[in-house]
Amino acid sequence: MKRMQNIANSFRSPALYCIRKRMWLRDNSMDNLFMARAIQLSLDNVLSGQGGPFGAVVVKNGNIVAEGVNRVTSTSDPTAHAEVVAIRAACAKLSVFQLNDCEIYTSCEPCPMCLGAIYWARLDRIYFGNLATDASKIGFDDSFIYEQFARPVGQRSIPVVQMMSEQALAAFHAWQEKAGKIPY
Amino acid sequence: MKRMQNIANSFRSPALYCIRKRMWLRDNSMDNLFMARAIQLSLDNVLSGQGGPFGAVVVKNGNIVAEGVNRVTSTSDPTAHAEVVAIRAACAKLSVFQLNDCEIYTSCEPCPMCLGAIYWARLDRIYFGNLATDASKIGFDDSFIYEQFARPVGQRSIPVVQMMSEQALAAFHAWQEKAGKIPY
Repeated sequence: MKRMQNIANSFRSPALYCIRKRMWLRDNSMDNLFMARAIQLSLDNVLSGQGGPFGAVVVKNGNIVAEGVNRVTSTSDPTAHAEVVAIRAACAKLSVFQLNDCEIYTSCEPCPMCLGAIYWARLDRIYFGNLATDASKIGFDDSFIYEQFARPVGQRSIPVVQMMSEQALAAFHAWQEKAGKIPY
Repeated sequence: MKRMQNIANSFRSPALYCIRKRMWLRDNSMDNLFMARAIQLSLDNVLSGQGGPFGAVVVKNGNIVAEGVNRVTSTSDPTAHAEVVAIRAACAKLSVFQLNDCEIYTSCEPCPMCLGAIYWARLDRIYFGNLATDASKIGFDDSFIYEQFARPVGQRSIPVVQMMSEQALAAFHAWQEKAGKIPY
């Protein structure tokens, strides 16, 4: 526990933070600062027991718009990954449903769910720290789910069945005919 | 508009609903009933203007636990797809972060984000109506995003950059050392 605290403090210490901030700014790079914040969030999240070791920030015009940490177990929500939490918070703050001109810094390579969310949010760029394979090594399913995506539908671990396709199309026809809809 | 209303009413009419319900039950199949509900939700969602033409229900032991509709534009949340909304609602209702022994009925084949959410939620089975390619034909990005997933990282439309990987690993080490953590 003490070693974990030391690791966390090395990121959280205001003095070290300021030194690092100046160093990074001298390098004309804000990227490290934003990633350091995502990493700090991931560390703090482990120590606080809120959820898994993941943190993310959404950045627009050189400023952090919103932050997110993994809250799957603490909020009973399997979709509450750091990136999804950060995206939802950023959209709520900006009152938008697409984050054009924004970038995301995440302490770990996005899992398929989060990568999908990033595409729907139309973020400009993804910066990440750990690889999905690193996450798999400590017990998370990221690589397994990526492998599932690469398989033909019929060979995946969760069975998939199509049914009532003709009836289901009715809603798509209704959407096409609807006036004044908001496309996304 | 009148045609859309007629389409919707054909699903919503209590008389027809009861007749269909009896027919389906005679066939010893509840599946059609649950899918019909997902389709009804998708139609109602277009008519109410809440969002896209998508609905989903989570089922456990032959009962609907929770429902979801697409609320992307109405709630400023790009992650508010029907499946994600239904999964979050089901987890909240059951106070769990995994939906073991549950199935999802969705009016359209899940997009990559929703498929990822389904894997994290550990649902047993997926039933769907429309294909992702049908959704693409009416302007949604499902197929585009699936194509992005199939490409090598460096060839995707959103640039991906790894950085500070050594520092990021600190949170993973902290997670490994943490006593009493809740794995998922």
